Parts: sequence; structure tokens; C-alpha cells
Amino acid sequence: MSVVVRNRERAERGVVEALAAFGVATIHEAQGRVGLMAPYMRPIYPGALVAGSAVTVSVPPGDNWMIHVAVEQCQPGDILVVAPTSACDCGYFGDLLATSLQARGVVGLIIEAGVRDVRTLTEMRFPVWSRYISAQGTVKATLGDVNRPLVCAGALVNPGDVVVADDDGVCVVPRQRVETVLANSRAREQKETATRARLAAGELGLDVYDMRKALAAKGLTYQDGKD
Amino acid sequence: MSVVVRNRERAERGVVEALAAFGVATIHEAQGRVGLMAPYMRPIYPGALVAGSAVTVSVPPGDNWMIHVAVEQCQPGDILVVAPTSACDCGYFGDLLATSLQARGVVGLIIEAGVRDVRTLTEMRFPVWSRYISAQGTVKATLGDVNRPLVCAGALVNPGDVVVADDDGVCVVPRQRVETVLANSRAREQKETATRARLAAGELGLDVYDMRKALAAKGLTYQDGKD
Amino acid sequence: MSVVVRNRERAERGVVEALAAFGVATIHEAQGRVGLMAPYMRPIYPGALVAGSAVTVSVPPGDNWMIHVAVEQCQPGDILVVAPTSACDCGYFGDLLATSLQARGVVGLIIEAGVRDVRTLTEMRFPVWSRYISAQGTVKATLGDVNRPLVCAGALVNPGDVVVADDDGVCVVPRQRVETVLANSRAREQKETATRARLAAGELGLDVYDMRKALAAKGLTYQDGKD
Amino acid sequence: MSVVVRNRERAERGVVEALAAFGVATIHEAQGRVGLMAPYMRPIYPGALVAGSAVTVSVPPGDNWMIHVAVEQCQPGDILVVAPTSACDCGYFGDLLATSLQARGVVGLIIEAGVRDVRTLTEMRFPVWSRYISAQGTVKATLGDVNRPLVCAGALVNPGDVVVADDDGVCVVPRQRVETVLANSRAREQKETATRARLAAGELGLDVYDMRKALAAKGLTYQDGKD
Amino acid sequence: MSVVVRNRERAERGVVEALAAFGVATIHEAQGRVGLMAPYMRPIYPGALVAGSAVTVSVPPGDNWMIHVAVEQCQPGDILVVAPTSACDCGYFGDLLATSLQARGVVGLIIEAGVRDVRTLTEMRFPVWSRYISAQGTVKATLGDVNRPLVCAGALVNPGDVVVADDDGVCVVPRQRVETVLANSRAREQKETATRARLAAGELGLDVYDMRKALAAKGLTYQDGKD
Amino acid sequence: MSVVVRNRERAERGVVEALAAFGVATIHEAQGRVGLMAPYMRPIYPGALVAGSAVTVSVPPGDNWMIHVAVEQCQPGDILVVAPTSACDCGYFGDLLATSLQARGVVGLIIEAGVRDVRTLTEMRFPVWSRYISAQGTVKATLGDVNRPLVCAGALVNPGDVVVADDDGVCVVPRQRVETVLANSRAREQKETATRARLAAGELGLDVYDMRKALAAKGLTYQDGKD
Repeated sequence: MSVVVRNRERAERGVVEALAAFGVATIHEAQGRVGLMAPYMRPIYPGALVAGSAVTVSVPPGDNWMIHVAVEQCQPGDILVVAPTSACDCGYFGDLLATSLQARGVVGLIIEAGVRDVRTLTEMRFPVWSRYISAQGTVKATLGDVNRPLVCAGALVNPGDVVVADDDGVCVVPRQRVETVLANSRAREQKETATRARLAAGELGLDVYDMRKALAAKGLTYQDGKD
Repeated sequence: MSVVVRNRERAERGVVEALAAFGVATIHEAQGRVGLMAPYMRPIYPGALVAGSAVTVSVPPGDNWMIHVAVEQCQPGDILVVAPTSACDCGYFGDLLATSLQARGVVGLIIEAGVRDVRTLTEMRFPVWSRYISAQGTVKATLGDVNRPLVCAGALVNPGDVVVADDDGVCVVPRQRVETVLANSRAREQKETATRARLAAGELGLDVYDMRKALAAKGLTYQDGKD
Repeated sequence: MSVVVRNRERAERGVVEALAAFGVATIHEAQGRVGLMAPYMRPIYPGALVAGSAVTVSVPPGDNWMIHVAVEQCQPGDILVVAPTSACDCGYFGDLLATSLQARGVVGLIIEAGVRDVRTLTEMRFPVWSRYISAQGTVKATLGDVNRPLVCAGALVNPGDVVVADDDGVCVVPRQRVETVLANSRAREQKETATRARLAAGELGLDVYDMRKALAAKGLTYQDGKD
Repeated sequence: MSVVVRNRERAERGVVEALAAFGVATIHEAQGRVGLMAPYMRPIYPGALVAGSAVTVSVPPGDNWMIHVAVEQCQPGDILVVAPTSACDCGYFGDLLATSLQARGVVGLIIEAGVRDVRTLTEMRFPVWSRYISAQGTVKATLGDVNRPLVCAGALVNPGDVVVADDDGVCVVPRQRVETVLANSRAREQKETATRARLAAGELGLDVYDMRKALAAKGLTYQDGKD
Repeated sequence: MSVVVRNRERAERGVVEALAAFGVATIHEAQGRVGLMAPYMRPIYPGALVAGSAVTVSVPPGDNWMIHVAVEQCQPGDILVVAPTSACDCGYFGDLLATSLQARGVVGLIIEAGVRDVRTLTEMRFPVWSRYISAQGTVKATLGDVNRPLVCAGALVNPGDVVVADDDGVCVVPRQRVETVLANSRAREQKETATRARLAAGELGLDVYDMRKALAAKGLTYQDGKD
Repeated sequence: MSVVVRNRERAERGVVEALAAFGVATIHEAQGRVGLMAPYMRPIYPGALVAGSAVTVSVPPGDNWMIHVAVEQCQPGDILVVAPTSACDCGYFGDLLATSLQARGVVGLIIEAGVRDVRTLTEMRFPVWSRYISAQGTVKATLGDVNRPLVCAGALVNPGDVVVADDDGVCVVPRQRVETVLANSRAREQKETATRARLAAGELGLDVYDMRKALAAKGLTYQDGKD
């Protein structure tokens, strides 16, 4: 049975947007190194950085019908997350769907399949993270689900979770943890700023992080010249 | 036996160039979703869009001798299509061959193998769609064929077919179908322009494409809140 | 036993820098087509071209502790070469480590694993050639080696070897051969400049390289029209 | 924080074993075509068919410490499901761990990483479905989790879910759905037995499944001879 | 438009069966090293060797409807060749379809996608060469073509061509060339039998094939001890 | 310049054969977890286990000429190790070369490329570990090297090194370390035999290896029921 779940709870929009300030690497660390999608998810153009509330779409291979269904469920600040039920490199999404999503205030697309019209999408500044780029068209014949939990590129995404994406990849933050992760991200960044200054001044990480004793305890040895 | 076939028939050049106005996604749709190469064929720089008449070259793995042979068969408006007889990531092609092809008016290269000197090729604005980028050199020891039908990245290419390539990939249009595909592409684009305006204004694809009844007939259901 | 070898011999710095003038394709040819890393090693931004003396680091999967150890062994003009003991896509390296390396005059990083903070690295103009881009963090729990010979992306790298990298990939020049390879590169480039002019003027490679007789001897035949 | 959750609820053991009678293809269909792991999960020897209650283990790349921790949580009829936090091809598991699991009545191992000692495991008839076979050893330095939900080869596995595996792959049945899926599997198999007899007698699927009208309605046409 | 072409011409059945005596490596050589499918096409069990007349089927990703249509077009001695219009790992084919094909005298299946029920297929001795093994089900919603030329795993297959498959892979012999290829295969095998005896007796290929002079002319040199 | 190095030193044959008693996983551990080839190197049939002195062959892509040259350099107890200068899936080796190697007492072949005639090789019990199986033929046109150091599947192989291969993969033992590794392997196996008995009797690895304190120190916690 195919189902569209409406009115999923979302995190408070200001909090979601605040997350985007930190980038994927920081957020991923700040939530304990979980929730990252596989590294084959790449942006179609460099420099984009977005955070949005996930509207999830499960699609059959080679069939994008449910993306059209999902558009109606999107609100400003959302991000669309699409995963096929089996691996597929078709181009499920192009500039017309992007036009429709932009009209609704959607901030981007995450798709573990293909995307097309990438030059136009780049001009529109509609960011997409996808597994493939392909012009291969899809049909509209078989149903799927909207706003049910799914696995996308190895990460579990519950509808309403916050998805953050930049040049480093895509990370999922569970809706219930958004505020904690935001706080952790701020703390982490503050600490890193101080560290960065010391490293730029020439101090070694060995000393900044106080690693020498632990390394010696593990048995690290130093030699000179040829081994 | 290795053969070079000379004077292959080509489509009328004005028609070929007209195709490039539409891009790969549109043309691929306009000819019934056939003829697309595999999505691992990627441009060496973004933004290029070309259409040309295919001069085909079948090469042994790690041997680019026949590309030199093929150059002589090229005319202005042609595009070179190279496929190895078994998978190979060597850099068959660099800036010297590109200089030679540009001197003859060739519009680009499609190669299901590697290319090198990509910085120089980018400066020259000689577009290449390849499977790999690699500096690995090739030898000149074994023959192949020029202007015989071949399979490149999963697509059948007959010499004289029109090949269109952009950021979305590479598509082959049989020579005999070029005019039909051009007409279809024009019709498709016109229709999409109208649709785009409606979507940009906030209409839903569900309504623009009149999908709701068919979805319901298939059994799509809507729920609220948690599933 | 884990070992850090200090004070590895390096090639004379002026010679190393001179190599960078030629680019990977030329140098790879000039040393007899050996020493190239696999083509999955890609730069995080286009246009970078560096040559440096290799400081090698062998790391466990998902553990970047030894990179911190290696930083101390780096001198101006060095390049860091990191290979995991088994395939790994984690993000071993980010902007903090890059800050530290830049402070020591290191010219770049070659890593057969993942890198993160690529937007910041791009802004810093710290060039990285990696197999993956990934935000996935690493631990600091298990030792490895610094400045021992290793295989990185299929190429043997001895500490002190010169590594050259650009948009075409990454090439290793044994320290003892640097001057010979430099001389060969100069000779090759000079010859190519002359060839380029002839090809640009419309001469065919078939004639410039005098290939017609050898092709005919191998049995190449020409036909007209359809095959 | 690393956690081991003890005493997870399991499905009734007789029901679990009954599922194994049907095989993965039938069960996957019987639960609506969900829950299948990616096809790169392959058995180390042909002919094995098992069903067990999942004990889940999340492990760092190249570190099998938590598998030793997980063994203690296993009961007769369980199946161990191991996923690394980032892609890893190390050999996490060999004949000693298999001996330990067999002593506890565990029916098999599912691991989205590498396994070793496969000849001995085959002799022991301890079945393993893995992504890789590799002798590469792992360390015991970093913690993970036991019996928390994880994604393995693209499928969500909750501890206590039933995992079924055979030559066709690996399928996850949520604990709460086991009885329904068992009933559906029985119904499906019964129906297929009848169909098989008709097909073996030479009837066509076109008629058995009554497809001709629907195909014609979609526009399927028949031609003779050359196209 | 979707088309089923009926009554394709086939090669004489005795000639087709005679080809199977030689195996793929010999036949591939005997027809000039063309027509081989990509090496990712693997048999589901070892030891099978078949030759048959191709009935070709083009299928959408995740949709096996047209295979049911194709069954009706099969005759004794045929082999089914299935390629998806974009890459797909679904299990298009299982034991029910195999039962139907065996009832019609079909000798095997070549599919550039997934297959399931492999244990049953093995028991039935119905040989399949596929790209994937997967239990993932398919739908019956969208049309394709039967008996039109297609590209399968990189090889062009015209309906009625002869397809030979064994443990080394899958090779396509154009229908018009079957007799020539058969004769060449016989000649090649006769010659190899004589060569095999000489090599088994300890003669070197260097002498049997008279390679020493050509190697020396190319510049091969011999050294003793360390390089 | 292409070179064949003759009369490379080898380890004492009895010692080499003794290594084969332990298998790859044990030997790899016994030499400190180095020297393993990538896991894509797979045996053509299960159950083979060999150790031999490496005769190394560097070949161009698609060209097996140097394998014929290398045969002459082989002695009883040797193993042939072949690596292409760039990635290649061609079938470099078949039953005729195997006949020749068996006549000389060679114990097997390691090839980071393709092999063919695998059914005959299996009947001959000539074991091969390869990256691919493919019938695709090769030419004899370009030279390479015999008995010079090379990188095969990510592992450095010096001529005369001992190569051990079984169902778990392929491992390289430097000639100078053979006796030490043999002694370590014996010690390791002895210890494992004792451990195996305790685990079979139901003792936990947590206790056998005394891990509980270290795990607790790292912060491992236990919970009951739902997480």
C-alpha cells in the first residue's frame, strides 16, 4: 500500500537555518559522528550549503511519479530526500520540478539516483546532491511513499529530520536532536577557532592536543635516516 | 582486418547545429528515450554543449594509433567518438591531438577511456566527454577501425550519426532521424516553456499534468501525522 | 612496530620546483611512463599544480593519528602522501591540519582516502588530491608509520621521492632520477612546441610523425562509403 | 557513548525457523518488497539458508572489538548483523569467532565488510553473507554499539528483527511482522506451485496471468520479420 | 512505440549447437576478437556451456513485463537476451519464468540485470549469465521491445544472432557469420591441440611461436641478478 | 627499456612450501599485517592453497607478450605474478600458457587483470587468482619487464619474494623474512589451537582475551531492554 503522510512535524525553522552556518563536517562531529550519507552523494555545483526539513520520497527504479506527489507536501524551508527502492541511475529530476520546488520555498534536493538539466539547475541556484547525473528519462506508472522513514545513501531519514548538505556531503540530524546538535556545533567551532590560531602560528598538533605521551605509551619510536 | 571507411554520409550541417540548441535531456526525450550513453561519461569542464557528426574510432586498450589515423577523416562539424575494444583508463588524447582536431574544425571528443592535458584542453575550449582523466600514455603498435559501427558507453554509434553532448551526458541521434528529432525537440521545448510558467506561478504538477485521478485509481492514500 | 623516520634525504628544492613547470603528463612520459597513481585520485579544485618531496604516512582505516605525527617531520617544499592500510573513505584531513601544514610550508596533500572541509581548503588554496570527499570523522587510537616506503593508489612512494600533481593526476619521481626526468621533460616540451605549431597549421599527425608506411605494413586498408 | 543493550525482545523461535523454509525471494515479496539488503552481500558458499533473530553490531572501520562484546549477547537461534560506520573491506571475522558463535547456537553472520578463513568456515558450515572476503586483520581499540538500530547494506535492522538469508541475498523482517509475513509466504508459495505446474505444461504466462488485454491497452504491437 | 517482432530468422540449429563445442574464448578469437560482453556478466553456477539463437528483450528498469511477452516468441534452441534501458540490479527473472522457458526448449538466459531463485535455477540446470543476483522484485507496468537490436553488456545483439556462453563469459556471433566462425573455430582448435602437446612436453612458447627474433628487434634485453 | 632479469635469488624451497601449510590469514598476521593484495583478487575455483617464489611480469594493457617471455625464467616452485601498467580486464592467460607453466613446475598464477579458459584451468587444477575472468584476447606487440619490482593489486612484489594464496586472498612475504614469518606462523597457530578449544567449550572471547577491563575503561556501558 502506498501512502502519503501529511503534516509531519518539523523542527523550528530558525533552528534549522542556524545549523547551516556550520557545515556538514562540524555538524557530523557535533552529533557523535553518525548520520552521514555515503560519499558518492555529490553536489552538482560547488559552494552550496543548505539545511532543511526532510520530506522523504520512496520511488521505484526509473519512475518519478511520486516526486510530483511529494511537491504538494513541501513547505518553505523543506528539503526533498528521494531514494529509489533499488539502485537506479535515471535522471528523475530536472528544471521543471526545480521550478515547482523553488516556487514552494524548498531549499534543495537530495537524491540517491540521477538528476538532469544540471546546467539550468546551476543557473537557477537550485542545489542538488545526487549519486548520478543523467539525462535518462523516467516513467509515471508505479506508486511509492511520501513522508515515511527511508534509507538514503546508507543513512536513515525520518520525515521531519533536518538534512544539512555542503561540498563535504550530506548529513541527517534527527528532529529531536536539532537543538543539542546546534549547541554542540557552536561549542566545537569556538574551540576550533582557538586551535586554528595556534596551528597557524606554527604550534604542532602533537603539542596543542597533547599527544606525545599517549603515542609513546603505544610504542611509537623514532629513527634517523634510512629504515 | 583493420579498415578506415572514408566519406561517410553525414546529416546536413545546419540541422546538426540546430540540435545543439536543445541539450541532451530534451533530445533524448524527443527521440523516445533511446541513444543515451552511460552516465560515467563526464565533461572535463562544465558548460560545454556541442552537436557533431560522428567519426568513430575503435582502439585497442592502451593504444591510440588509430586516433591519428582518424583525424584525416574529420571534416568541420564532426565529433570524434572513440571506444576501446576492452575497458581502459589510459590517457589516449591530449592537447596535441586537440590542436590537430581544432585545426580541422572538429567540435569535440567523446571517449570511453581516459584523456589528459585537461587544463590545456579547458583553456583551448576543446570539449571532451570521457570516462576517465589520466596522464597514462599509450603506444602506437596495433590497428583498429575508423568509421565502422561501434558501441560506446553502452550506445550504438554508426558513423555519420549525430552526437549531442552537454553537462547531462552524451546522446546519439541516428543520421536518418535527425530532422524528426529536431522537430520533436522544438515541440517539446515549446510545451515545456508554457508548463514552466505555470509551475513558477505555484501551480502543482499534480494539476498541470492532471495526475490526481490516475494516482487515486492506483490506490494512493493520504494519512495525517505519524505512520 | 611503528616507526617515524626522521631527516629523510630530499632532492634539491630548486630542482623539485622546476619539475612543477611541466605537469604530470609530460613528466610521466619523460620518465618512461611509470610512477602514475590510479586515476581515481582527483584534485578537490581545478588548476592546482604542485611538486614536493614526499613525507609518507601509513594510517589504519578510520584513524588519522599518524598524520598529526607526520606534520612535525615536514619541511618547506614537502608534500604529504597518506595511504591507509586497507581501503577507507573516511575524511582524515580538514582545514585545521591544512593550517598546520601551510604554516610549515608544505605544498599539498596526496591521500588515498577521504578529505573534508573542501570549501575551506579551496579558499585557503591548499591543494589536495584524494580518492574521496567525505565528512566522516576518524579516531586517534592506533599507530602507523611515517617516512617508510608505501604503495599509494597503486604507485610505490619512497620517502624523499618527488611527487608532482595537477588536473591530470599524481606522478611519483624517484629522488635519484629527478634531474634526469627534469632534463627529459625540457627536451620533450621543446619538441612538442614545434609539433604543436605544425598541427595547428593543419598538418596531419600521420605526416608529422611519419606513420603512413608503418600503418600500411601492418595491413591498414581504406574503403569508401558503406562497410 | 557506546552502549550494549541486553535482552532485546525476539520473535518466537519456531516462527523464525518456519520463515527459513521459504527463501529470501518469497519472503521479500510476501512483505511487500521491502527490507532487502544490497546485492553485493554474497554468501561465502552456495546452498545455505538461514533465519535468525538479529543481534546488531556497529563497528568502526578496521576494528572488530565490538564483535567480541556482541558474542555474549547472543542466544541460540540468533544471527549476528555487523555494519561498519564507514565502508571497510577488512576481514573482521574468522574461524575463532565462528567457533564461539556456533558454541552459542548462532545460525550465521551478516557483515557489510570483510570475512576471512572462508575455507574453514565452509568446512564448519557456518554461513556468512559478506560484502568482501579479505585476510586483512583488524584492531581492538575503539568502541561501537551492540543491539541498537543500524543500517546494513542499505537496509534498516532493528535488534530482534528476523533476518533471512540464502543464495539470493539477505532480507530483514521486522519482528512485529513475522507472523503476517509467514502467512503471506505460505499463501504465495501455494499459489506459485499451481502456476508452476501450468507453465511446465506449456501454458504461457501471458495467459496464466491474463496479461494480453492490458498489454494491448498500453499499445503493444506485433510485427513480422525485419524491423 | 513498443513492438514485438515475430518470426525472426535464425541460423540453422545444428550449426548453432556445433558452436557450443568450442567455448567462448575460442569462438571470440575465431571471429576476430569482437562481440564479447563485459566481464561482469557471470554464470550463476560453474560448468554450463550453451549456444542459442537470440530472442532480444529491452526492458524498463525494475519492470519485467516484456519478458513474459518474449516467452511466446521463443522456440527450441533459443536463448533469451535481456537488457534494461538503464542500469538496474533488480531480480527480473526466477524459477517460474525458467520453468516456462524450459517448457519451450530455451537453452538459457543472458540478462544485464539481476536474477533470483538461483538455487532452484541451479537445481533445474537452467543456466543464467547475469550482472547481479538479487531477490528484488519487479513490476509489470511499462512496455519495451522484443526482437529489436539492442546493446547488452557492451555488445550489440541483433535478434537471431547466435549467443554462446560459458564460464569465461558471453559472446555474440552475427547470424550471417555463424558458419565461417564455426569453421575458424575448428581450425583454431586443431592448431591449439598440436601446440598444447609441444608445450606439455616442455617446449617454450618463445620457440613454438618463434618469438625470439621479434622480441630482440623490439629491444628486449636480458640481465643477470639484481637490477 | 625493457629488461628480463635472470636468476633472481629465491628462498629455500622447503621453507616456501612450509608456509603454504598456514594459509593467508595466519601468514598475514604473522608478518605484522602487511603485504596483502586487494580483496578483488579472487581464485577461479575454491580450495586452492599455494606458496611460491615470485617471477614478476609487468605487461602493457591488452598485451600478453611478456608472459611468454617470463615462462622461460620460471623454475619448479615458482609462482607467476602479473600486473598491467594500467587497469585492464583482458584475458591475458589461458590453458595453453597454463600447460607450459605446469610443465615447468610452476604452482600458480597471480594476475591483476583477466584470465580465460577457466573451466579447463579448473580441470587441470592450475590455480589462478585474478581480478577478472574474461575471454577477451590480447596482442603481442609491446614489451614490458620480467623480474623487476612491481605493484600488484596494491602490494609491492620483489622478484623472489614468496607469494601465498588461498580462498582468503593473496599475500606477499619478502624473501628475507620468510623464515621469521614461518616461525611466527607456527607460534600463532599453536596459540590459536588452544584458544579454539576454549571457545568451542563455550568460554567467551571477552574472558579468554581478558577484554572486560579495557572495555570498561574506554567507557562501554550496558543497558537493558529498549534504547
